[in-house]
Amino acid sequence: MPDHGNLTDDLPPAGDAEAFDTLFANPSLRIERIVSHGHASPEGFWYDQPQDEWVVVVQGEAVLAFADGGHLTMLSGDWVAIPAHCRHRVESTGMNTVWLAVHASPNP
Amino acid sequence: MPDHGNLTDDLPPAGDAEAFDTLFANPSLRIERIVSHGHASPEGFWYDQPQDEWVVVVQGEAVLAFADGGHLTMLSGDWVAIPAHCRHRVESTGMNTVWLAVHASPNP
Repeated sequence: MPDHGNLTDDLPPAGDAEAFDTLFANPSLRIERIVSHGHASPEGFWYDQPQDEWVVVVQGEAVLAFADGGHLTMLSGDWVAIPAHCRHRVESTGMNTVWLAVHASPNP
Repeated sequence: MPDHGNLTDDLPPAGDAEAFDTLFANPSLRIERIVSHGHASPEGFWYDQPQDEWVVVVQGEAVLAFADGGHLTMLSGDWVAIPAHCRHRVESTGMNTVWLAVHASPNP
């Protein structure tokens, strides 16, 4: 039986740091679960990633901000494809917010 | 604002064929939404894919069968990492079952 699980298994308790778990990785990609409890990117911090990233909110809510001034409020099932070097930050998250993030390989 | 959407937007009506929509693709990977309404793989058919595939049930239910005799019942949030050439089939799906599938590139 291949490796399997549930996206909401074993959620870390509120109050802990944002939690990152790699669910799958191969030379092409990496799939990560992120659990947030009201976390946000530090003031003035922008992600500027060398690879494309695709994320979906599994449960909870979050607001992403983009360097062009746009904001995206995300609820369960909402996804966004963030191109490489598209500067963005996590403006806010709710409690028990679960993300699924798919990171493309840096050297496809 | 980057490309975005919701995994349960615009579900095709029951009775239609299984529906496949590519949500994102780059040289490393392809992300696809699959909507099933009671569909199953044809009798005796096995998927035998040259690339790794990672799938999660977003809503609904499904049963996967593997060539080693194993069965995996999947509900919302359940994921499985299917290695390349791991023979499998879709034994059954419920109505309005939404999958998210991440396909690794054939040439990472």
